[in-house]
Amino acid sequence: MPELRVHNLTVSVDGYAAGPRQRLEQPLGEGFGSMHEWMFAAMRDLADGKGGVDVEYVERSKENIGATIMGRNMFGPQRGPWEDESWTGWWGPNPPFHNDVFVHTHHLRPSVVMEGGTTFHFTDEPVEAVLARAFEAAAGKDVQLGGGAATVQQYLRAGLVDEMHCAVVPRLLCRGERLFDNLGDGIDGYRVAELVGSPAAAHVRLVRR
Amino acid sequence: MPELRVHNLTVSVDGYAAGPRQRLEQPLGEGFGSMHEWMFAAMRDLADGKGGVDVEYVERSKENIGATIMGRNMFGPQRGPWEDESWTGWWGPNPPFHNDVFVHTHHLRPSVVMEGGTTFHFTDEPVEAVLARAFEAAAGKDVQLGGGAATVQQYLRAGLVDEMHCAVVPRLLCRGERLFDNLGDGIDGYRVAELVGSPAAAHVRLVRR
Ligand SMILES: NC(=O)c1ccc[n+]([C@@H]2O[C@H](COP(=O)([O-])OP(=O)(O)OC[C@H]3O[C@@H](n4cnc5c(N)ncnc54)[C@H](OP(=O)(O)O)[C@@H]3O)[C@@H](O)[C@H]2O)c1
Ligand SMILES: NC(=O)c1ccc[n+]([C@@H]2O[C@H](COP(=O)([O-])OP(=O)(O)OC[C@H]3O[C@@H](n4cnc5c(N)ncnc54)[C@H](OP(=O)(O)O)[C@@H]3O)[C@@H](O)[C@H]2O)c1
Repeated sequence: MPELRVHNLTVSVDGYAAGPRQRLEQPLGEGFGSMHEWMFAAMRDLADGKGGVDVEYVERSKENIGATIMGRNMFGPQRGPWEDESWTGWWGPNPPFHNDVFVHTHHLRPSVVMEGGTTFHFTDEPVEAVLARAFEAAAGKDVQLGGGAATVQQYLRAGLVDEMHCAVVPRLLCRGERLFDNLGDGIDGYRVAELVGSPAAAHVRLVRR
Repeated sequence: MPELRVHNLTVSVDGYAAGPRQRLEQPLGEGFGSMHEWMFAAMRDLADGKGGVDVEYVERSKENIGATIMGRNMFGPQRGPWEDESWTGWWGPNPPFHNDVFVHTHHLRPSVVMEGGTTFHFTDEPVEAVLARAFEAAAGKDVQLGGGAATVQQYLRAGLVDEMHCAVVPRLLCRGERLFDNLGDGIDGYRVAELVGSPAAAHVRLVRR
C-alpha cells in the first residue's frame, strides 16, 4: 500500500517548526535562520558521494515519492486572498518536486505547471479528499507531506500519516509554530521507532503504534 | 561563582516532563513509565565501573552539588493543604540528596531532617529568595534544581538557571506537563551548547547565551 510520509521536518529543541512573522525575506520566520543547515550539508555530501547519518535520512526522503502535499504558508509568504498570482513558490522555475503538488488553501487559484514535471494544484478540500487525489496522482508511489506544522498536524490528527521523520537541531527558537500542538488524541496512534544522533541533529522517526 | 544547574531532566520527543494525573501509584503521571530507564541504566553502569555517554551525563549531575531545589509536586503526590505530614518524599529514609532540599509550596510545614544529611525545607518565598538560601546552604558549591517543569520554568523565566541538561527519550507522551512552556522571553537568554546522541537518549545542554 502506498504511504503518506513526512521527511526532514526540522524542529528546534523547544519544538518549533517555524519562527514567528514568516515573510518574503524570511520564509521560515524569525530566528529559524540556519536550522536547515544539517539538511543542506547532507545534500552536498550526497552529491559528493559521501555518506553519514544525515545523508541516509535525506536519501530516504527522495525514494519512491509520486506526489506532494503542503500548506499554503509553506508555498509562499502571501496570506489571505492572492494579491499576486505570479507567485509560483520559493523554488524557482524548476522546483525540486517533479510531480503534482497539492497546496491546501481557502483561496483557490488555477493550477500552475512548472518546468521539470512539477504542477501546483490549489485545493480547499478536506485532508482525506486531498490525500486521495495525491495517491491517485502518485500512481502507486508514496505521497510526501512537506509541511508546515499546521498542515502536518491535521494529517496526524486524522491518523493519515504513515511515517514521520523529524530532525531536532541544537537551537532554541522560543516562539513560532509548534509541531506537537493541536494534535488532540491523534498523536496517541504513533510511537517513536527511531532516535538517532548525528553531530548536527537528533533524528526521530514516528510510525503508527 | 556557584551555579544553579539542572540535570537529567527527561522529556519525551513531544516535549513533556511529566504525564497527566500524577499520583501515588504513578509519581510521574500516566504514560511516563520507563522514560527514566536511560538514567537507571546509566546509574547501574556507573556503579559497575562502565562508561558511555549516558554515564557521563549522570556523573556530571553528581559533581559539586551542595543544595537542592524542587517543586512540591516533585516532592510528593499530595496537592493542596497537607493531609498527611508523615509524607517525607519518594526516596525513603535516606534520600539521595545528602544536603538541604528546598521545596517550593504555598502550604508550609516544619522542616524534616532525614538520614544521610538530607533536610527538607518548605518555603513559599519567591525563587530569588529561595535560591539565595540554597546558595548559602551550599556553602560555595553549586545548587541543583531538580524539577518539575513548573518550577524549572520559573527559574528559566527569571534567568537564574546557569546550565540545564535534558535527555530527550524516544517516547511520545501526548499530554502532561510541557517543559518548554510558560517561559515568556526568559528562554531567549539561553542557547543549546550540546546535542549528543546515545542509543537511549538525545542529550541537550542549555547554557546562557
Ligand atoms: N521546519 C521545517 O522543516 C519546515 C517544513 C516545511 C515548512 N516549514 C515552514 O513552516 C511555515 C509554514 O507552516 P505553517 O504551520 O505556518 O503553515 P502551513 O501548514 O504551511 O499552511 C497553513 C495554511 O494552509 C492553508 N490550509 C491548511 N489546511 C487547510 C485546509 N484543510 N483547508 C484549507 N486551507 C488549509 C491555510 O491557508 P489559507 O489562509 O490560504 O486558507 C493555512 O493557514 C513556513 O515558514 C515554512 O517555511 C518548515
Ligand atoms: N522528567 C523529569 O526528569 C522530571 C524531573 C523532576 C520531576 N518530574 C516530575 O514532574 C512532576 C512535577 O512537576 P510539575 O511541573 O507538575 O510541578 P513541580 O514544579 O514539581 O511543583 C509545582 C508546585 O510547586 C509549588 N510551587 C512552585 N513554585 C512555587 C512558588 N514560587 N511559590 C510557592 N509554591 C510554588 C506549587 O505547589 P503548592 O500547591 O504546594 O503551592 C506548585 O503547584 C512530577 O510528576 C515529577 O515526578 C519529572
